[in-house]
Amino acid sequence: MRAEIIATGSELLSGGVVDTNTVFLSEELLDIGIETAFKTIVGDDEKDMEDAVRIARERVDVILVTGGIGPTEDDITRRAIARVLKKRLVLSDDALKAVKAVFKAKEYPAANDRQALIPAGARLLGNPVGVAPGFVLVEDEKFVAVLPGVPAEMQAMFREHLRPALEEHFGGKAVIRRKVLHTCGLSESKVNELIQDILKQKRPAVGLTARDTSVDIRIVAHEGSGARSRSTMERTEAEIRKKLGDTVYGVDGQEMEEIVGALLLQRKMTLAVAESCTGGLIGARITNIAGSSAYFERGVVVYSNAAKTELLGVPADLIERHGAVSREVAKAMAQEMRERARTDLGLAITGIAGPSGGTPEKPVGLVYIALATAGGVTTTENRFLGTRTQVRQRSAQTALDMVRRYLIA
Amino acid sequence: MRAEIIATGSELLSGGVVDTNTVFLSEELLDIGIETAFKTIVGDDEKDMEDAVRIARERVDVILVTGGIGPTEDDITRRAIARVLKKRLVLSDDALKAVKAVFKAKEYPAANDRQALIPAGARLLGNPVGVAPGFVLVEDEKFVAVLPGVPAEMQAMFREHLRPALEEHFGGKAVIRRKVLHTCGLSESKVNELIQDILKQKRPAVGLTARDTSVDIRIVAHEGSGARSRSTMERTEAEIRKKLGDTVYGVDGQEMEEIVGALLLQRKMTLAVAESCTGGLIGARITNIAGSSAYFERGVVVYSNAAKTELLGVPADLIERHGAVSREVAKAMAQEMRERARTDLGLAITGIAGPSGGTPEKPVGLVYIALATAGGVTTTENRFLGTRTQVRQRSAQTALDMVRRYLIA
Repeated sequence: MRAEIIATGSELLSGGVVDTNTVFLSEELLDIGIETAFKTIVGDDEKDMEDAVRIARERVDVILVTGGIGPTEDDITRRAIARVLKKRLVLSDDALKAVKAVFKAKEYPAANDRQALIPAGARLLGNPVGVAPGFVLVEDEKFVAVLPGVPAEMQAMFREHLRPALEEHFGGKAVIRRKVLHTCGLSESKVNELIQDILKQKRPAVGLTARDTSVDIRIVAHEGSGARSRSTMERTEAEIRKKLGDTVYGVDGQEMEEIVGALLLQRKMTLAVAESCTGGLIGARITNIAGSSAYFERGVVVYSNAAKTELLGVPADLIERHGAVSREVAKAMAQEMRERARTDLGLAITGIAGPSGGTPEKPVGLVYIALATAGGVTTTENRFLGTRTQVRQRSAQTALDMVRRYLIA
Repeated sequence: MRAEIIATGSELLSGGVVDTNTVFLSEELLDIGIETAFKTIVGDDEKDMEDAVRIARERVDVILVTGGIGPTEDDITRRAIARVLKKRLVLSDDALKAVKAVFKAKEYPAANDRQALIPAGARLLGNPVGVAPGFVLVEDEKFVAVLPGVPAEMQAMFREHLRPALEEHFGGKAVIRRKVLHTCGLSESKVNELIQDILKQKRPAVGLTARDTSVDIRIVAHEGSGARSRSTMERTEAEIRKKLGDTVYGVDGQEMEEIVGALLLQRKMTLAVAESCTGGLIGARITNIAGSSAYFERGVVVYSNAAKTELLGVPADLIERHGAVSREVAKAMAQEMRERARTDLGLAITGIAGPSGGTPEKPVGLVYIALATAGGVTTTENRFLGTRTQVRQRSAQTALDMVRRYLIA
């Protein structure tokens, strides 16, 4: 069962506005076992909309259209759908009643009559929170539904009317299960190499996505809803975890700082952070988690050398001898941070985020991370690729991952 | 001149991931006078991609494809494009050299060779911040370009290589002018009220978009490229600025930290930051600007009361008497930060980000911001709405804006 979502609105094509309607709809469709194969965004142009609907009818079974059913001239969806499906537009008494009811005592703008037009044979979808009604039309085994473009109206109409209609129509068919594993520390090609056999299998299907700070592995099972499908999902996940070990840090959108925070709480441990090249990014991420004051005690952003010496007591001659970006300075920062804050863990980071400041010996992307614990200090040397923002994000992610690995070891 | 943007990636079709690549691209295209007529999102399916490219070739002049050119099994764009355009895929020596160069001394995974395949006759687009090269192919007057799916790589490649190629190819045609003004400190309805007459005009068209940390005003002129069009744009901008005064902090995507950084450089002034509720967010934003070490000296994240006393010398009894979230503590933090760091400015922030920790007297969203200068300390009391993340983002933005307003006063 494949679906296409068509969203209309010129604001979606001129930048600035991010399309969230199709994200909501594809998530909801997946939930009832319908896979979105295409999304198409068209402007407020009747011919383009006709084109999009015609193409969708040729390649999918379910077509959801959002937007273009308001009372203004540039609302073009009704006419386009009627033309492609070769239906007349008729004034629906029920729709007209519903539209008028919204206005109640208020002055009723005559242009609103237009919103009560639906293709002959279509079934009305009520609008629980707005004016424009939607509709559903099933023709030649293609399920076509039209929803408003305003997100709150679209969501309410989907949940109250369209979702039940879809479940009734496609009831008892396949369910899609989905799980995403997030990894840290391996490149996309390395993950690809490690699980290439699993990536080739069809059921469940496994895919990779490289994001700025993680490589994600998606497991999607199109099978039935029974225990067998669940167990093949679980078996595939277990196989992947076996190959990738503890590089898998979370699932289904969990952030690294969430995982680290939960582990610190569990272990009743506290953390302080000394940042140079990340400038506060690690602290900002840790404290974005509600309740982080239970384990995050303090941080220092020692951007200048004077700050490293004054706030952490890193000896000026150590910095002089090895450079601010060095294993020795990272180590001293972590140890001092832990001691001064009297926390269980002291995390420190110093590096060259770029774009300038690199040398042949110490290129942009060179980052030292140190973790001080009751058992001593561990330091890693990292070389990150990318822009200043990417180097900083990858540095912060890798530093948090170092804490995670220590806590699960 | 009409364009279609095709984005590939199953994660864009199963919910969860919001597509921002096509937003960036349609904005950039508009900027050089090319209107996006369609956006199509397809999964990691070679046949669906072929389908999408074939349809795009029939209805637009410019086709941009993002994603699906990595080294893994599910990267399907190259083959699909080659098939539709009836080209062989050839191993480009230049591409192979570029791919290998990224790995330098590191172990080179053989799967990466695949990334050097491009359709015969295509022109290579270098990847300034990653591995996968893109390419451009002009055939039957259709301009087809392929970019990576990782946003940072896509953006860098577009800016450095594709945009110049597009400008060269389509140079001198109709121009759409567009300018966005960013404001801080006013609600969307307040901005609406202040410029309602200007919002009604048609040429240039003016629109509003509320974002998390700013209300944006868009000015779009579809007219010719001559001096007349430029002067109506400028007149409209001047009228808006007259109504909104210094709440307009930047234009066309400038970030507050960029503006503040440029002002600090200009005035040869330095800054240190003491953060509580924002946890490092302000420092992270300031240091995301290359060259910020010229004006940013240090920061402290004084999350616990002990940290406030130990790192800043805020008297424990002051905290005891007024609470950590108080005007008095904010003031002391700013003064101490400025003195200890020996900077021109000391910025401090303390507040309740939520969701818990609020009381009837001190509700979630209450945030004190203080700025210490040679002339004394200014403190503001703010009440921000929204989630924890929103309260923190708005706090950081408002704090930076306080520095900006001081520097331009």
